[in-house]
Amino acid sequence: VGNEIKPEKSVVDVGGVTFGGDRFAVIAGPCSVETREQILETARAVKRAGAGLLRGGAFKPRTSPYSFQGLAEEGLKLLMEAREETGLPIVTEVMNPRDIELVLNCADLLQIGARNMQNFPLLKEIGQTRKPVMLKRGMMATMEELLMSAEYIASEGNREIILCERGIRTFEKYTRNTFDVSAIPVLQSFTHLPVIADPSHGVGIRRFVPAMARAAVAAGADGLMIEVHTDPENAYSDGAQSMLPDEFETMMGELGAYVKLEGKHF
Amino acid sequence: VGNEIKPEKSVVDVGGVTFGGDRFAVIAGPCSVETREQILETARAVKRAGAGLLRGGAFKPRTSPYSFQGLAEEGLKLLMEAREETGLPIVTEVMNPRDIELVLNCADLLQIGARNMQNFPLLKEIGQTRKPVMLKRGMMATMEELLMSAEYIASEGNREIILCERGIRTFEKYTRNTFDVSAIPVLQSFTHLPVIADPSHGVGIRRFVPAMARAAVAAGADGLMIEVHTDPENAYSDGAQSMLPDEFETMMGELGAYVKLEGKHF
Amino acid sequence: VGNEIKPEKSVVDVGGVTFGGDRFAVIAGPCSVETREQILETARAVKRAGAGLLRGGAFKPRTSPYSFQGLAEEGLKLLMEAREETGLPIVTEVMNPRDIELVLNCADLLQIGARNMQNFPLLKEIGQTRKPVMLKRGMMATMEELLMSAEYIASEGNREIILCERGIRTFEKYTRNTFDVSAIPVLQSFTHLPVIADPSHGVGIRRFVPAMARAAVAAGADGLMIEVHTDPENAYSDGAQSMLPDEFETMMGELGAYVKLEGKHF
Amino acid sequence: VGNEIKPEKSVVDVGGVTFGGDRFAVIAGPCSVETREQILETARAVKRAGAGLLRGGAFKPRTSPYSFQGLAEEGLKLLMEAREETGLPIVTEVMNPRDIELVLNCADLLQIGARNMQNFPLLKEIGQTRKPVMLKRGMMATMEELLMSAEYIASEGNREIILCERGIRTFEKYTRNTFDVSAIPVLQSFTHLPVIADPSHGVGIRRFVPAMARAAVAAGADGLMIEVHTDPENAYSDGAQSMLPDEFETMMGELGAYVKLEGKHF
Repeated sequence: VGNEIKPEKSVVDVGGVTFGGDRFAVIAGPCSVETREQILETARAVKRAGAGLLRGGAFKPRTSPYSFQGLAEEGLKLLMEAREETGLPIVTEVMNPRDIELVLNCADLLQIGARNMQNFPLLKEIGQTRKPVMLKRGMMATMEELLMSAEYIASEGNREIILCERGIRTFEKYTRNTFDVSAIPVLQSFTHLPVIADPSHGVGIRRFVPAMARAAVAAGADGLMIEVHTDPENAYSDGAQSMLPDEFETMMGELGAYVKLEGKHF
Repeated sequence: VGNEIKPEKSVVDVGGVTFGGDRFAVIAGPCSVETREQILETARAVKRAGAGLLRGGAFKPRTSPYSFQGLAEEGLKLLMEAREETGLPIVTEVMNPRDIELVLNCADLLQIGARNMQNFPLLKEIGQTRKPVMLKRGMMATMEELLMSAEYIASEGNREIILCERGIRTFEKYTRNTFDVSAIPVLQSFTHLPVIADPSHGVGIRRFVPAMARAAVAAGADGLMIEVHTDPENAYSDGAQSMLPDEFETMMGELGAYVKLEGKHF
Repeated sequence: VGNEIKPEKSVVDVGGVTFGGDRFAVIAGPCSVETREQILETARAVKRAGAGLLRGGAFKPRTSPYSFQGLAEEGLKLLMEAREETGLPIVTEVMNPRDIELVLNCADLLQIGARNMQNFPLLKEIGQTRKPVMLKRGMMATMEELLMSAEYIASEGNREIILCERGIRTFEKYTRNTFDVSAIPVLQSFTHLPVIADPSHGVGIRRFVPAMARAAVAAGADGLMIEVHTDPENAYSDGAQSMLPDEFETMMGELGAYVKLEGKHF
Repeated sequence: VGNEIKPEKSVVDVGGVTFGGDRFAVIAGPCSVETREQILETARAVKRAGAGLLRGGAFKPRTSPYSFQGLAEEGLKLLMEAREETGLPIVTEVMNPRDIELVLNCADLLQIGARNMQNFPLLKEIGQTRKPVMLKRGMMATMEELLMSAEYIASEGNREIILCERGIRTFEKYTRNTFDVSAIPVLQSFTHLPVIADPSHGVGIRRFVPAMARAAVAAGADGLMIEVHTDPENAYSDGAQSMLPDEFETMMGELGAYVKLEGKHF
């Protein structure tokens, strides 16, 4: 995936939305798909605000086995319904090689989460598909390791890869993670793959997401992933970092000028 | 897995060798199974030196897809041959849910590696077996997260779990990881499960393994896992931290007195 | 220094240049004052490019006692000469309580470096002066600790304090530090003090400084500190992260639009 | 301070107690000197339990300026009174170059705390004395940096240096720091200086101090520093990690066998 082999930047097309070209793509939606009403309402709201893709987790990697684990197949169906209504391509995570086929039928962009960045059997099997994939940096992975994990996918034949910085684990306790904005230009200096950023996980606190989203744009990100929930207080997961649809819309409005300065458009 | 539910310590029996009781169990062997001669020779040597179990990787999680990935099924067969000759129970890693059945047929103790500590689908499927399992702490995982991952296995019905401290990732660059010896007594204060330590990965430098093995014993570990290779210079993986059989034998000799001070025996 | 006591933002005036108001202040110059020619040439160049203040170290905290330790009093004199010629206020570090008086006579803004963020006797003595002071975040310090260190200065009576994020130490090895851009809005949410950023130390690699400078502006920084050297290859310290005057000028040109978006001007 | 220059181990004599030879020296006492009764009572208790030196802070580096800052000169006098009664040499911290002369008159061993490991003016001035000095590793300092800081002292002429591992800052939240036991043998492989360990700060939780003290002995430490307080619940600082005199005495009793295994004696 090094740019010494392919100097020109790759453009990854996800259901008509492109990453890595002139367009600045924003993925938005809830951490987890919870109910039909929740995902449909959120899908409409983020579309209205200018998001290009809808995210929503059906298979959730949770620290505790006693936490909500996601709606699984039922969640995938609800995502497809949201796509049908809004036209937004779907981004959703796959954790288990045994679920790849199921998720392939629903997702427009497969997400490999931070905890699975070095799940090599999963990477290899996804490498054998031709579905676009977003690979998130592990919370304690060096940039070099992220690139090597992308290489696992690419070496099996799938080059439709988007990298995502989402914060690393440090000693700082106030923010959920330390959002490594420098990873954006550094990764871009090594690879031709698009690099996006997830400030929601990066800081983990709703009110700092807009500032970090602006920082990611200004550092040259090719897109963003933002958690949006219609009722964050009662979210099954990640409520503290999820924005209300109104807040997201305001942020998108402010981001436009920064995106334009980078020579891109939504 | 908390000891508020089961105060008395659990004893896990692996092919006749016990972890968590009076016996101090030592797992030794190469990082990877490389050749028939290598694994048989090492098995004989570590047995002679007093090891209770043989380790050897057949499926290897490597940072780069271009590094040696393990002999897979062929490696498992060689491990079974080594067990047949020496009588040592076998410890080997499983990374892919699809390989569990294959590995179950060979291993006496399934290893879940640091990179898979939060591979929840893998934990759940192994939880549905009744095979003893050693769960290594992720290099980025808090002790609480390690305990929650053990809970994933236990909540599916498999209580035959051994925890393993193997070093965490920090800013210090000289050692490969920072071997968190304090995790041994801290984990034991929360859980009834046996806790062992892997000083080979903990420091990553051969000549410091004996001192760290002594430290782990003195901190109350229930066992050790040590990498031993007949020709570390030419090892396919982890050569810098693998001890020669002679060095391992010397270390085992010295460890005896420390193990005895803890009221245990090999 | 909390904004629950003083909600309105503080404006710190340094020789006519303000931090915390409408103006976006840029401090630029070499890591160390090395020669008369070097500092004068650099001062002219950064002034031409739009910098508002000149930095230069006369007392240098170096890891090794055998590295260049700075020109001390001679360095201070050269800085004063540069100020006389260019009119740029001077920013320079003080490490030793015994040197405060000497440095007070030269500096317009005292710098307390990352290694001295918790040098409490130094903080207290500087708190007893009325000279503006820039306090850099320690490479191991939480944001809360940085605020408490500012409190050491303020509680002695000196409220002319500017905070500076300069990167923290993490496991990532490619960048010199991990530049914690999120510290900018998070600190601003707690304190009324101006918060600036030092991307040169934050990433430690010249070619990534412009992207990280833009990110800091977009995250809401009140100013920047940038290392500039006329001959980075032969710099006595920090050459790898020092920009050439031309590069700095180009960066300043590009930054203008971002500064304007934040409602500020150089 | 490298052992390529002086291969044989240095022995540092502190008021008749030696570090680095056959003797295993234990420094014990409270974090802070609080009252006459407290320090005298503690001094008697730790002496009875077998400690060789008394610690107690008179100048305290506290995160907040509003926390107890130590009794200063009054504290030094109380320490001298305790020495007179018990005969135990005194270990106490100096933070400010301006206080060196004062502390020199009281202390038998100067302590440079973790926050001052890179306070280079302080290191240089202490290097110009001939008083034994204990240099603690910074909470985010590499071992190489610790050795370079020792070099600052040695290069000024003072070779009576003892290094102290006291835990580093990591992402793990349960323990106060991560006690890097591996630093003991690693540092000893580079330097001829004695290396001791401070498990009280290393883990920060009283009940884990004995296990970590044993680990440090088994890893080859040349001594220990342990916080002991007659009333930890009401300690002005570090109560959670301070042992009661009884607990300390029990621990010392158990440690004897481990010290003997290392070929040393109290």
